[in-house]
Formats: sequence, C-alpha cells, structure tokens
Amino acid sequence: MKKVVKFGGSSLASAKQFKKVGDIIRADKSRRYVVPSAPGKRNKNDTKVTDMLYACYEAASTGASYGKLLSAIKERYEQIIDGLELNLNLDYEFKTIEENFIAKKGSDYAASRGEYLNGIIMSHYLGYEFIDAAEVIFFDENGTFLSEKTNEELSERLAHTERAVIPGFYGSNPDGTIHTFSRGGSDITGSIVARAIHADLYENWTDVSGFLVTDPRIVENPVPIETITYKELRELAYMGASVLHEDAIFPVRREGIPINIRNTNKPEDPGTLIVENTCRKPKYTITGIAGKTGFCSVTIEKAMMNSEIGFGRKVLGVFEDCGISFEHMPSGIDTMTIFVHQSEFEQHEQFVISNIHRAVQPDSIELESDLALIAVVGRGMKSTRGTAGRIFSALAHARINVKMIDQGSSELNIIIGVKNADFEAAVKAIYDIFITAEL
Amino acid sequence: MKKVVKFGGSSLASAKQFKKVGDIIRADKSRRYVVPSAPGKRNKNDTKVTDMLYACYEAASTGASYGKLLSAIKERYEQIIDGLELNLNLDYEFKTIEENFIAKKGSDYAASRGEYLNGIIMSHYLGYEFIDAAEVIFFDENGTFLSEKTNEELSERLAHTERAVIPGFYGSNPDGTIHTFSRGGSDITGSIVARAIHADLYENWTDVSGFLVTDPRIVENPVPIETITYKELRELAYMGASVLHEDAIFPVRREGIPINIRNTNKPEDPGTLIVENTCRKPKYTITGIAGKTGFCSVTIEKAMMNSEIGFGRKVLGVFEDCGISFEHMPSGIDTMTIFVHQSEFEQHEQFVISNIHRAVQPDSIELESDLALIAVVGRGMKSTRGTAGRIFSALAHARINVKMIDQGSSELNIIIGVKNADFEAAVKAIYDIFITAEL
Repeated sequence: MKKVVKFGGSSLASAKQFKKVGDIIRADKSRRYVVPSAPGKRNKNDTKVTDMLYACYEAASTGASYGKLLSAIKERYEQIIDGLELNLNLDYEFKTIEENFIAKKGSDYAASRGEYLNGIIMSHYLGYEFIDAAEVIFFDENGTFLSEKTNEELSERLAHTERAVIPGFYGSNPDGTIHTFSRGGSDITGSIVARAIHADLYENWTDVSGFLVTDPRIVENPVPIETITYKELRELAYMGASVLHEDAIFPVRREGIPINIRNTNKPEDPGTLIVENTCRKPKYTITGIAGKTGFCSVTIEKAMMNSEIGFGRKVLGVFEDCGISFEHMPSGIDTMTIFVHQSEFEQHEQFVISNIHRAVQPDSIELESDLALIAVVGRGMKSTRGTAGRIFSALAHARINVKMIDQGSSELNIIIGVKNADFEAAVKAIYDIFITAEL
Repeated sequence: MKKVVKFGGSSLASAKQFKKVGDIIRADKSRRYVVPSAPGKRNKNDTKVTDMLYACYEAASTGASYGKLLSAIKERYEQIIDGLELNLNLDYEFKTIEENFIAKKGSDYAASRGEYLNGIIMSHYLGYEFIDAAEVIFFDENGTFLSEKTNEELSERLAHTERAVIPGFYGSNPDGTIHTFSRGGSDITGSIVARAIHADLYENWTDVSGFLVTDPRIVENPVPIETITYKELRELAYMGASVLHEDAIFPVRREGIPINIRNTNKPEDPGTLIVENTCRKPKYTITGIAGKTGFCSVTIEKAMMNSEIGFGRKVLGVFEDCGISFEHMPSGIDTMTIFVHQSEFEQHEQFVISNIHRAVQPDSIELESDLALIAVVGRGMKSTRGTAGRIFSALAHARINVKMIDQGSSELNIIIGVKNADFEAAVKAIYDIFITAEL
C-alpha cells in the first residue's frame, strides 16, 4: 500500500499544524510520499508566505529595501522550527535566497521558496528524505509541463526512495531555473507523484472535510460529498464550484488512482473520495449543485425553422464569428434560445442581432439578460425516476420562474436557467428538496 | 357581420347531412359565403366521392371501362338531390365530365368535380348564387397559388354578391385548366374567401367538436380545446397532431380573422376557436399534447467542449452535410445531444459518426434509437409556476424515464424525450395530471 499525501498551506501554517500533520502521517505507514505547500494563513488577517515572498522579491529585484520583509519570512519558518523543537538552521538557505533575489532569478523562483523551505523542515521533522522538486519535475522552454519526462525520472528516483518529502508547486526549466505551476499548483505536484509511484491513493489534506454539496455562501453548512466521480467533479467545477486545481486531476485519473480530500483539523472525518467510477450508491440522489450568474439569452423565432436544414448551424456561426462561445441551446418548435455569457455578448450585441437577421431571416429575436444557470449534477439521477419532477416542484414552491431547462441523454446533469435575482433561492430550494429532505 | 362557412366531406355525404348543414346556415343570417367539400364517407366502409372520381378518371383516360364507376358517382349526387327534393338534373354536367375524362383533362380536373357538383347542389338548396372556383382562384403556370391576384378578383366579385356558394379545393391555371390544392384543400379555399371579404369569422364545420387536447387513439375521449392561438396550433401540428391544413391558416391569420372549428352533428357545441392572440385565461394550464415516435439521439462528450468556440457549429455542420435536419440539441456540461429523425439518420449513421470524429475529436459518441418526442404546449404555462414540476412528477409516478428535457425562454412549450415504448403512457400521464386532475 503506497499513499501520496499532500498538505495545503493552512495545514502547515504553524508548528501546531505541523504536529497535526506529523500525527496523520505517522498514523499510517503507507503515507510514504509527502508533498507540502508553503505556510498559509494562521488566522483571517495573516499573510500567506507565498505572498510575502512575491512582495520581498519585487522589492529586492527593483533595488527597494527588502530586509524587513525577508526577516519576517524567516521568522515564520523559525517559529515552526522552534515549535517542533528541531535542530535545524535555515541561515544558509536564506543567504542563498537573498543573493538570488538580488540577482533577479525570477518571481517563480521567489514564490517556490515557500514550498522548498517547508519541504526541508518537513523532511527533518519526519525523518524522510528531501527531494528538491527542481530535480524531478520538468518544464520545456515554453513553460509547458513535460509529463512523460517527469514521470520517467520521478519513477526512477522514487523507486529507490522508501519515504520522501517533495515540495509542491514548482519544477525546473531546461536551463535549470525554477518554473511554477499556477497558484494552487501543489495539488498538481501531489498528483504527479502519485502517478509516478502508482499510488493506491492520493490524499489531499486541507482545512475542509471534503467537497460540499453546494456553496456554503449560499446554503449554511452544506453536507460534504462522500464520493464523487471525476466527471461530476469536472461538471461542478465548470459551473463555478471551487474544487481541486483542474490540472491536478489528469495525472491520477489516467492511472485510475482515487483522490481523497481530507481535513487536517478533523482527521477522523472520511472526507470526499474522488473516483473514476463507482457502484457505491450515492447517499443522496444528487451529488452537487453549482451555478453561475451573468448569462443572457437570445431567443430566435421563425415559423418552420425545424425543417430548415442548416438553420442552427448558421445561427451558431454568427456567434462564432464574434468569438462568443455559447453555453446551451434549448429549442422548442419554431424557436431556439442561445445562452451566452453576458460579458462576452454585450459588446457584440447589435452585431450579432443584425447578422442573425441576415443569416436566417427570423420572424423575431428577443433578448433577456441577467440570467443564472444552475447545474444539478449526480450519477444517482440516472437510476432515480422523478428527479426532474422534484427539482421543478421545489422551484415552483419557492415561487421561482424557470426560464430554461436542458437535459440531454447523459442524464448526469440537469441545467436550469433562472433570473439572477432568483439564483440563491433556487440553489437553496434544490438543496433542501434533495439534501435536507433526505437527511 | 360576415361569416364564411366551410363544410367538410362528412358534413355533406348525404341528404340527411345536407339538411343539417342547411339548418346551420339558415340559423345565422351572417353565414353568407359557403365553401363545400365533396361528399365524404356515409359510413366506415363507404368511399369518398373524390376517390371515386380519381379511379373513374384513371379508367376513362386509359381507355378502360369506366361506365359503372361514373354511374355510381352520379348515383351519389342523385340520392342527395332526391333526399333534398330539389328540382335539379345533373345530366348535362355528367356528360361534360365524361367528355373531359376521355379528353384527358387531368386528374386535378377529375378530383375537383366532387366539390364542383356539391357546390351546384348546395346553391340550389340554399338559393345562394353559385360561383365556380375556377373563375376566382388562380394558380401560375408552375402551380403556385397566386394569393394577391386571387384576393383582388375574389374581393371584387364578392363585393357584388350578397350570398354565394364557392366550391372548395380547386382553382384554375393561366390556360383555364383546373388545378387543385393538396388533399384537404377546401380548408384553404374557405380561408381565402374569408380573407377576401374581410370576414368576422371563418367557421370550419367538420365531424368533431373542435380540436382535442390530445390524440383520441391514445387517450379515450380527450376534452376539446376551447381556444387556441395560431402559434400553439402550429406547434401541435408540427409535433404530429392532425389539425387544419397548414396553408389554410395563412390567409386568415394575416387578416386577424379567427377560425371556429365546429361539429355539424353537434351544432350546439362551441367547438374550438383559433385566434391570433387572446387574454382569455385557458381552461386548463396546458392547451395540448402531441408527439411523434421514431427519433434517435447522438450524444457527444468532450471535456471542455463548452469553451471551444465553434464546437456546436461544427457538429451541426456534419448533420447538414448529410441533409439531416436536427430537432433539438439539449446540452449539459461537456456533453451535447442531437435529436434527429431515425429514418433520416439511419442511412447516414456511420458517415455522421466518422465526420463528427474528424470535425471535433470528441471523447465519445453514443447513439440511442427508438425515442419519442412529446411537446406539451400552452400559453397558460408562462403564467403558471410549477408546470414542469407537475409534468415530471407525473412521468416519474408513471415509472417513465425521461431521456431529454428542452425548454427555452419562450415558455410556450416543453419538449420531453422518452423511449418509443413509453410514448403512449407518457402522453396519458401528462393528460391526466393536467386535464383529468383539473376537470
């Protein structure tokens, strides 16, 4: 049994948090490869070390005074070291960092030091080997991640390493300089390591007990999702749910390695298990609800349009010519409605309308703005009749007008359009009918 | 007040029916212009006179024996004349018909004699002037109906005619030969006459008390529709409901003349009123349910497709290249489903699939056949929340799996996809929840 464990910034923000992490890792001998983030916020008003590093580098590389900033960063790490009672001194590392900042080694280099230093501390604390990510994770000269080269070299290196700490977020360019993934990229590093060692499980430890069924800013204390498929996750993420870094999914998904989202502060919680597929019956009919506001709809009417071959293609061609991607295109009889992002559409509005007139000579075109789209996602919907009925009864009961309904044969999700003003009430109503009522 | 009254074939199949028609016309002095069809079936095993005429012409023009057939036709008319105790002899007319059949004056000519002769009898019976449709309804050399020329000449002629009978179904070509509308075309003649005289109402008398909410072959004794808009009518007709001849709607619609579908055998029933628009609250939330079987769905999955500009347009382009019109295109996240007619799709199936692969490199394409589409239509749905909820709850209760849902911003109709095998049960369930439950 081999597990890769990745810990987020809040899980490593202080010595107290490090101790929780240590307990978690020691509790399971299969947690052999550890990917740490940089220290995050210790409280609401704290600053993440990564942000301190960016600011310090900006000052140093432009010749401004940076001493205080660098000391504050060092102080963060020394507090952790002291709290863990480690015999470790980072003077040499900080001297190197200072030199490299002045030599303008790049903001990627600067940002990566947060994980790098945390990795050194973690390896001392655990007694695991430290492997600098720059030696095992590679980008090409254009900054594109080299997945196959990385996988080969990382597999080879870890085959001879029983237990190791590999800092997240960064790797190296062909010239040896540091290159980082986008923010939150430690998730990707963990996924890459899991793939390289053919891990049985990739544990992603954070400060929540897994993904929540819906946005906690809309519904108070939503229940966590126990098991979610990659596909469902992708759908919820697309519709605005903030979940794992998208690129973190590909490396493990191709190997069929499940991801377990866990809570460092509540290690007893099972968290959310992300899987390729499962026969496990979901606890609730739906897996999640996500949505976005700021859409508008263009409704085109023309008698006999259904029998006019090429009608839909011509209409979509007009949007394409303006570089506008469409979200959904529900149709009735003699009418079709195209949902687009309001921000993309507004500047091209009149151009689109006149070109639709030219392309298909409609009887009428109507516009409606300030609409929201909600996705109700769940593999359980396929085997449960009446899901649509429950959704629309709940919305009717909440006095919400449904502007659009779209469900294709996949039966994995139903998309509902409502007014922006009804968005939160609609999400709440759907949550209540499926979760509160099934609790 | 001026009304045009059109009577269908079953309303004029016998002297007994003619008497009902006479009573109806005499009961309302504003019923000034009468458009008769040819005599229809008197009972289930009877033959329509129009069909007898086609057969007789076929025989006469090919030199086969036709005497018996012609006598049988004459016999039908003589029975009506005798039953009405009219002093009228059709020997001259039948002699002319026989000559023209032998001279191969065309099957349009032959078919039109059914209405022509019925018109002569009707004018004698009512004491109204007889106007041969060939003198007032015009087609061009390609058989295209000349609406403006007809309207001008017909208006002029009827301005000087207080009461008249104008046989339905036919008109004349520029060379004076007879040209007919397609079968059921007397509806069109009535509509053209109504437009020409700026009628207050176009009454279309048939053997049912108006349009029914749904197909009586699926639901036993469905209730009739009291008021329906042209748009609703068009939607139900498109989805398979057999209603008025479509071309019969345009002439009156442009003048805002309502159509009243009435029952000759139950003149006390109000029938269905077809209007451009109405504030009248519909009696039921929905106006009608219609549907068709024989569709199949092509579901295309591709991660991130929504953000790929041109994706939908390219997919539809593939169908267009094969000359396949699509019915609906509901989409989820990373998936879109295209509904097409199975009969159109089957022969191009593999071509479509390989071209979709070439055009957009999908992750997967799935096909499902033997699907039915049901349209629930009603202007009342817009003002009633919860319509969708009721539909889908009813379908769930009937244990029917919903394969597709499509509702755009028009809110005038909801399209539902089910398996062919579930089609009738689905229509029944929707009928019951809206009509039986609201009765």
